[in-house]
Amino acid sequence: MKFLIINGPNLNLLGKREPGIYGEESYDALCRMIEDHAAAHGSTARCFQSNHEGAIIDEIHAADGVYDAIIINPGAYTHYSYAILDALKAVSVPAYEVHISHIDRREPFRAISVTAPACVGQLYGHGLKGYLMAMDYFLEGGK
Amino acid sequence: MKFLIINGPNLNLLGKREPGIYGEESYDALCRMIEDHAAAHGSTARCFQSNHEGAIIDEIHAADGVYDAIIINPGAYTHYSYAILDALKAVSVPAYEVHISHIDRREPFRAISVTAPACVGQLYGHGLKGYLMAMDYFLEGGK
Amino acid sequence: MKFLIINGPNLNLLGKREPGIYGEESYDALCRMIEDHAAAHGSTARCFQSNHEGAIIDEIHAADGVYDAIIINPGAYTHYSYAILDALKAVSVPAYEVHISHIDRREPFRAISVTAPACVGQLYGHGLKGYLMAMDYFLEGGK
Amino acid sequence: MKFLIINGPNLNLLGKREPGIYGEESYDALCRMIEDHAAAHGSTARCFQSNHEGAIIDEIHAADGVYDAIIINPGAYTHYSYAILDALKAVSVPAYEVHISHIDRREPFRAISVTAPACVGQLYGHGLKGYLMAMDYFLEGGK
Amino acid sequence: MKFLIINGPNLNLLGKREPGIYGEESYDALCRMIEDHAAAHGSTARCFQSNHEGAIIDEIHAADGVYDAIIINPGAYTHYSYAILDALKAVSVPAYEVHISHIDRREPFRAISVTAPACVGQLYGHGLKGYLMAMDYFLEGGK
Amino acid sequence: MKFLIINGPNLNLLGKREPGIYGEESYDALCRMIEDHAAAHGSTARCFQSNHEGAIIDEIHAADGVYDAIIINPGAYTHYSYAILDALKAVSVPAYEVHISHIDRREPFRAISVTAPACVGQLYGHGLKGYLMAMDYFLEGGK
Amino acid sequence: MKFLIINGPNLNLLGKREPGIYGEESYDALCRMIEDHAAAHGSTARCFQSNHEGAIIDEIHAADGVYDAIIINPGAYTHYSYAILDALKAVSVPAYEVHISHIDRREPFRAISVTAPACVGQLYGHGLKGYLMAMDYFLEGGK
Amino acid sequence: MKFLIINGPNLNLLGKREPGIYGEESYDALCRMIEDHAAAHGSTARCFQSNHEGAIIDEIHAADGVYDAIIINPGAYTHYSYAILDALKAVSVPAYEVHISHIDRREPFRAISVTAPACVGQLYGHGLKGYLMAMDYFLEGGK
Amino acid sequence: MKFLIINGPNLNLLGKREPGIYGEESYDALCRMIEDHAAAHGSTARCFQSNHEGAIIDEIHAADGVYDAIIINPGAYTHYSYAILDALKAVSVPAYEVHISHIDRREPFRAISVTAPACVGQLYGHGLKGYLMAMDYFLEGGK
Amino acid sequence: MKFLIINGPNLNLLGKREPGIYGEESYDALCRMIEDHAAAHGSTARCFQSNHEGAIIDEIHAADGVYDAIIINPGAYTHYSYAILDALKAVSVPAYEVHISHIDRREPFRAISVTAPACVGQLYGHGLKGYLMAMDYFLEGGK
Amino acid sequence: MKFLIINGPNLNLLGKREPGIYGEESYDALCRMIEDHAAAHGSTARCFQSNHEGAIIDEIHAADGVYDAIIINPGAYTHYSYAILDALKAVSVPAYEVHISHIDRREPFRAISVTAPACVGQLYGHGLKGYLMAMDYFLEGGK
Amino acid sequence: MKFLIINGPNLNLLGKREPGIYGEESYDALCRMIEDHAAAHGSTARCFQSNHEGAIIDEIHAADGVYDAIIINPGAYTHYSYAILDALKAVSVPAYEVHISHIDRREPFRAISVTAPACVGQLYGHGLKGYLMAMDYFLEGGK
Repeated sequence: MKFLIINGPNLNLLGKREPGIYGEESYDALCRMIEDHAAAHGSTARCFQSNHEGAIIDEIHAADGVYDAIIINPGAYTHYSYAILDALKAVSVPAYEVHISHIDRREPFRAISVTAPACVGQLYGHGLKGYLMAMDYFLEGGK
Repeated sequence: MKFLIINGPNLNLLGKREPGIYGEESYDALCRMIEDHAAAHGSTARCFQSNHEGAIIDEIHAADGVYDAIIINPGAYTHYSYAILDALKAVSVPAYEVHISHIDRREPFRAISVTAPACVGQLYGHGLKGYLMAMDYFLEGGK
Repeated sequence: MKFLIINGPNLNLLGKREPGIYGEESYDALCRMIEDHAAAHGSTARCFQSNHEGAIIDEIHAADGVYDAIIINPGAYTHYSYAILDALKAVSVPAYEVHISHIDRREPFRAISVTAPACVGQLYGHGLKGYLMAMDYFLEGGK
Repeated sequence: MKFLIINGPNLNLLGKREPGIYGEESYDALCRMIEDHAAAHGSTARCFQSNHEGAIIDEIHAADGVYDAIIINPGAYTHYSYAILDALKAVSVPAYEVHISHIDRREPFRAISVTAPACVGQLYGHGLKGYLMAMDYFLEGGK
Repeated sequence: MKFLIINGPNLNLLGKREPGIYGEESYDALCRMIEDHAAAHGSTARCFQSNHEGAIIDEIHAADGVYDAIIINPGAYTHYSYAILDALKAVSVPAYEVHISHIDRREPFRAISVTAPACVGQLYGHGLKGYLMAMDYFLEGGK
Repeated sequence: MKFLIINGPNLNLLGKREPGIYGEESYDALCRMIEDHAAAHGSTARCFQSNHEGAIIDEIHAADGVYDAIIINPGAYTHYSYAILDALKAVSVPAYEVHISHIDRREPFRAISVTAPACVGQLYGHGLKGYLMAMDYFLEGGK
Repeated sequence: MKFLIINGPNLNLLGKREPGIYGEESYDALCRMIEDHAAAHGSTARCFQSNHEGAIIDEIHAADGVYDAIIINPGAYTHYSYAILDALKAVSVPAYEVHISHIDRREPFRAISVTAPACVGQLYGHGLKGYLMAMDYFLEGGK
Repeated sequence: MKFLIINGPNLNLLGKREPGIYGEESYDALCRMIEDHAAAHGSTARCFQSNHEGAIIDEIHAADGVYDAIIINPGAYTHYSYAILDALKAVSVPAYEVHISHIDRREPFRAISVTAPACVGQLYGHGLKGYLMAMDYFLEGGK
Repeated sequence: MKFLIINGPNLNLLGKREPGIYGEESYDALCRMIEDHAAAHGSTARCFQSNHEGAIIDEIHAADGVYDAIIINPGAYTHYSYAILDALKAVSVPAYEVHISHIDRREPFRAISVTAPACVGQLYGHGLKGYLMAMDYFLEGGK
Repeated sequence: MKFLIINGPNLNLLGKREPGIYGEESYDALCRMIEDHAAAHGSTARCFQSNHEGAIIDEIHAADGVYDAIIINPGAYTHYSYAILDALKAVSVPAYEVHISHIDRREPFRAISVTAPACVGQLYGHGLKGYLMAMDYFLEGGK
Repeated sequence: MKFLIINGPNLNLLGKREPGIYGEESYDALCRMIEDHAAAHGSTARCFQSNHEGAIIDEIHAADGVYDAIIINPGAYTHYSYAILDALKAVSVPAYEVHISHIDRREPFRAISVTAPACVGQLYGHGLKGYLMAMDYFLEGGK
Repeated sequence: MKFLIINGPNLNLLGKREPGIYGEESYDALCRMIEDHAAAHGSTARCFQSNHEGAIIDEIHAADGVYDAIIINPGAYTHYSYAILDALKAVSVPAYEVHISHIDRREPFRAISVTAPACVGQLYGHGLKGYLMAMDYFLEGGK
C-alpha cells in the first residue's frame, strides 16, 4: 500500500513547538516512525510537509492515481482552508484526518474542522501514534 | 487490561437502525468482535448498553477502580449530556470517545460533542472497527 | 389498528399541573378517552407514560413490529432529546407528535421541537382532543 | 357552521407544483373535498385563494361576523407576514393554521411561523387531509 | 401645505382591533381629526389606507410632486417591507413615521423599523395624537 | 425565443430614483433596449413591472407554457419574498435573476437573495446591460 | 405645568460637537427655547444637564412629586444605562425620550434604546424642535 | 418543617470528584450535616440523590403534599433539563436551587440555569454550607 | 467582624420603587435590619448607597484593609459595570453579591451578572433577608 | 483589449473534479474557449491558474498597467481571502468575479463572497459560459 | 507641548491591583515617569485619574483649547462607555488610547474597545512604557 | 539588536494602494526608514515582504535563534491566518504587531486580529512611524 502523509503548517517544528502540547519527538522522528510502520506492513509512506496552503493542494492533486491513501494533519489550515477541502474532494484517493493534540480542549477555533467532511475519518488526542492508527485503518481494509 | 465498553441510546438497535449509516452488523456481533479483540490481547472487555442517561452515569461511577479504560459511544447523549461529561471527569479511569458514523457529514447538531473534553481522544468514521482502534490505543500504552 | 400512546415527563400530573395551560382533565381521563376512541374505531390503544427519557426510548424500541402507530407527546423532552429523535427514526412504526398547549405562545424554548423531524406530522393547541385527531389521521389511512 | 378556507400564494398550483412535496391533487379537488366535508357535517365552506398578501388581509377583515372559523394555509407568507398575523388578531373569528407538507423537514426558513401565535392550533404533515382535521376541530366544539 | 397620510395594514380596523393597545377611536375619526388639524393650519390632508404593500408603494410614487409631506404608519410592514423603504427613498417628498402604540414595549419584532431610515423622523407612544405632532413638525418648518 | 422580463417594486422609477445608484436611463428606455435586443435575435420580450408581490406571483404563474425564459429583477422583494421563490419553483420556465446595482456594496440586507435558489443564475453590477447579458445566456442555449 | 428637561452626556457641547449632526445652536439657546416655550404655555421648565450617570439618576429621583413631566435626552447613556431605566421606572413622573439626530441612520449601537421602555413615547430626527414637540405632548394632555 | 433535599448527577461522588472544585467532604457527610441542621431546628430532612433525570422528576412529584420545601442541586441537569423545570412548576412545594461551586467562574455552559425560574431563590459559591443557608431561608419564614 | 454593605443605583428608593417586585420595606429599614443583625453577632455594619458608579468604586477602594467583608447589591450596574468588577478584584476584601428580586424571572438583561465573578458567592430571591444570609455566610467562617 | 483570466485553487482539475457540479470540460478547453472568444473580438486573453493564494496576489499586482480587465474565479478563496480582496482593491485594473456553479444552492459557506466588493460585477450559474459573459461585459464598454 | 493624561477606573490602584497583570509600579510612579518624560522633551503633562465616568467626560470637555494631546487609558470604561467615545469626538484635541496589559489575551469582553474609534491610535502590551510611546507619537509630530 | 520586519500581503504596494488610507510613502521608503532607525540605534533590520502566507511562516521559523525581535504587519492575514499565529507561538523570538491604518474605523472584519495573542504588543494608527515605535519598544528593553 502506498501512503502519502501530509503535514501542514508548523508541524516541521515538532518537538520544538509548545512541547507541552505537541510532545518532544521531532518531525524527522515522526517520519521515520511512519516509514517504519509502513515497511512493517509491506507498504511505503512518503512524508510531505509544507507551510504553504497552495503547495499542500498541489501535492494532493499530484497524489491522484499514485497513492492509495492520504493521512493529513492540516495544522491550522484545518480551521479555515476550504481550498484544501475542495482539493481532497477533487481527487479519488481517500484521506484520513489526524490531529496530535486534543483539539476540543484548546482554543474554540480549533474545535471546528472545515476539512473533515472530505475525509473518511478523523481522530485526535493520541500524539504521534494517531498517524499509525490512521494508517492501520487503511491497512486493515478501511476505505 | 480490563475494558468497559459503554454504548448509549439506540445502539442496541445496530444493524436494524438506518443501516445505510450504521452498517448491518448487530449489537451482539459488535460485542463479540470487541470481546474477541480483547481476548486476543490478553485482556477482557465488558459491553454495557443503555438508553438511560442515568444508568450510563451509574456505570461510569462503578467503573472507578475496577476497569483500566472506558471506550464510550454516548450516542445522541454526546450532543447534550453535560451529566455524562461530569461523570467521566469524576472518575479516574481514562475514557476514549468513538462514533460509528461520520458525524461531521450529518445534521449540524451531531458536529458538537459536549462529552469529548473528558476523554483522552476521539475518533469517528470507521464503523465498528473504531472500537478496536480505541482499544488498541490503550493496549499500546496510551493513557 | 394498534396504537401506542407515549406521554413524556410531567404529563402524569395532567389536571393538577398548571390547569390554566393544560386543562383540568386528569391523565387517567385522557387514557380512557383515548381507549374509548380506539374502541369506537375497532382499534386498541395502550397508554404509556414515563418521566424517564431512557424508558421512553425502551418503549419505542419495543413497539417495533407490535404497534401500527405511535402518538407521542414528549413533554419537555421535545426540546432537547436527540436520543428520542434517534429512537423514533430507528423503528419502522410511524409516529405523530402532539402537544396539548399552544407551544408557540409560551416560552421561546418550547417553540423548537427536535423530535418532530422523526414524526409524520405534528399538531398542537387542541387540548386533549389533539390525541384523538392524531389517531384519526392514522385511522383514515395516513402513514 | 360557516367556514372560510384561506389558501395563500402558489397554492392555486396544487398538483402542478412540486408534486413530490405537495401531492398530485389539484386546488379545485381540494376545494371540493373541503366543501363536501362541510356539507357532510351540515356546514358550509367558502374557499378563497390569493397570491396577494393584501387580499388575504382584506378577506380576513371581511370574515368578521360572517364566518364561524377560518382555516388558513398562508403558504410562504407564514414565514414573514406580520401583517397577516395582525389581521388574524384583529378579528374575532378563530383561525387554525394548516400546512400540507412537513415544514420541519424542509428549508430552515419554513420552520418558523410568524402567523401561528394568532391561531388556536396548528398542524402539518397530512397532505390535504389536514384541512379536514382542522375543520373537525371546530365541528367538534373546539374554539 | 398638502399632506398625504398613509396608513398600512389593519389600521382600517382602528377602534375594533385590540382597543387596549390601539385605543377606541375609529379610523374615520382619525381621518377627520387629521383633516381638521390640517384645515386649522390652512393646509389639506388626504388619508389613504391599504392592506396591500404594492398599493402603498404605488401611492408613494404618485405623491411625488403632488404633496409636500407624507405621514406614514406602515403598520406591520414597518418591520419587513424593504420595498416601502425603497419607495420612500425614491421620491422627493419628505416622510415622517408614526406609530400609535409603544412599539418598544411589545413583541421584539416590533422594535425594528426597516422603513425609518427613509424618514426624517419617527415618533411613537402618543396614540392618534402622534399623527398631528408629525404634521406640526412640517407645519413649523421641519424638512 | 419568448422572454418575460419581470421588474419588481420601484423599478418603474428608473432614472428618477437614486440615479447615483441606478443610473439615468428610464424604465421605458430599459424596456425598449430589451425589446430591441430580443428583436435583433429573432425573439420577443414582454416587459412587466409591478410594485405588488402578488401581481408578480400571478405573472409568473401565467408564464408557464407561454414563455421560454424569465428574466427577473425582484427589487427589494429579492430579500424577503419567499412567496416569489415558491412561485419560480412552481413553474417550469427557467428564470434568471438580475440586479442593476452592486448589491454586495450596499446595505447588508441587500447581500441576501432569498429568490436566487430558484433561478439558474444571477448577475449584478452591470447597470441595464445586465438584462441583456441574462437574455444572451438563454439565447446561446443556457437553460 | 412643571417640566424637568434632562440632557445627558456631551449635550452641554451642543453647537460645538459635530454640528453636521447636532446643529449649530448652543445648549444655552436650547434651554432658552425650552423655557420660552414653557412660558408661552403658562408652564415652567428647568433644564438640567450632566455628564454623570449617577447625577442624572439623583435628579430623576428628586423630581418625584415635584415635576409633572420629564423630557429626557439620555445621550449615549440611552444605549446602556439600565440604571437610568430603573430610575425612570421608580418614580411616578411620566417621561418622554427625545433625540436630536436621526439615530437609525448612525452607528448600529445608537439604534437600541434601553431607556425607552420606561418612557411614554419617543421621537427623534427633529433637531432641537423635538424637545418642544415632547412638551406639547404633555401640554395637550398626554400622559 | 419537612425538607426534601435533592442532589442530581455525580453529587454522590462528593469528596472524590474534583475536590479542588467541590471540596473534600463526602456525600454522606453532607447528608448528616443537613439532617443535623434540620434536627437542630425541630425539623426533618430527607436526602435523595440520583443520576437519573426521570427519578428526580418522580421524586419531585412524590413530594407534593408531603414536604414543606425542596432544596435542589440539579448538578449538570441545571443546564438543560426543561423536564425538571416543568416538574418543579407542577408541584406546590416551594423549591430553592443550590450550587456548591462558583458556577459563574467555570465553563460558560454552567452560567445558565434552566431550572432556576421554577425556584424561589438561588445561591452558589458556599460549598456545602449553601444547603444550610437555603434551609434557613425557609426556616425563617421564606416561601 | 466589620461589614460594608454597598447598595447601587435606585436602591435608596426601596419601598417606593415597584413594591410588587422589591417589597414595601424602606431603605432605612433595610439598614437598621442589617445593623441589628450585625450587632446581634458582635459585629458592625456600615450601609453605603450611591447612584454613582464611580462613587461605588471609590468606596470599594477605601474598604481595603478597613472592612472584613463586602455585601454588594450593584443594582442595574450588575449587568454592565466592568469597572465595578475590576474594583472588586483589585481589593483584598471578599465580596458577596445579593439581589432582592428573582433576577432570572425578569427581563433577559437581568439574567447576566458581570460583577459576580469577582464575588465569592451570589444569592437572590429572598427579598431583604438575602443581605442577612450573606452576612451569615461570613459570620460562620466563609471567605 | 487585454484580458487576464485568473482561476483559483482546484480549477486546474476542471472536468475531473465533481463533474456533476463543474461539468466535463477540462481546464485547457476552458482556456482555449476564452482565448478564442478574445480573438474573435480582436482581443487577447492570458489564462493564469494557481492553487497558491500568494501567487494569485502576485499576479494581480503584476497586472497593473498591463491588462485592461481581470476575470477572476477565486475558487474556495472567494470565501475567506481578504488578502485577494485587498489585492484587487490595490490595483487599477477592473475585475469581474465569475463562478461556474450555482453557489447559492451549495454549502452555506459558499454563499458568502469576501472578494466580490472589490469587483465591478459578479455572475454565477452559467458553467464555463460565464467567463465569456464577463468578458463581453468589458468588450461592450463596461468598466 | 501640553499633555493631558487620563486614567480611568481602578488605575489609581496600580501596583496594588493584580500585579501579575499590571506590574508593581504605583500610580504615583507612573505620573512621575510621565511628567519627567514630558519635561525631558520641553513639554508638560497633567495626570488625571477618576473612577467616575462623568468626571472623565468633564475633564475631556475642559481640555478643549487647553491641551495639545490627550493620552487616555479608559480602564474598564473602554468596553462600554459610548459617552466617553462621544466626549472624545466632541473636542478638537487629538487622543491616543493606551492599555497597560495585553487586552487580547484576557477575558473576551476586554477585546472590544468602543472608545478607540475616537482616537488617532491605540497600543497595548507595554506596561507603563506605553504611555511614553503614545506621548512620543505626538512629540514626533503625529496628529 | 537584530530586527526582522515582516510585511504581509499587498504591503509591497505601499504608496500606490489606497493612499488615502495607507499614505504616499513607498515600501522601499519604509524599508530605508526602518534600516536607518535601526542603524541609528546600533542595530540592524532586515525587511521581508511576501504575499504568500506560507513564505511568511517559513520566514518566522527561520528567524528562531537569528533575530532578537520580529515586527510584523500581517496585512489581511491578520484576520484569518491561524497558521501565522501558530508560527509566532512556535518560535522564541518575541514579536510585535503593527498596523499602518486605523483598523477599528474600517470594515468590521479588520477589527479582529487572530495573530495578536502571539505578540507582546500591538499598535495601530500611526502610519509608517508605528514600525519605529515598535522597534523602540524592544530597543528600550521591552520583551
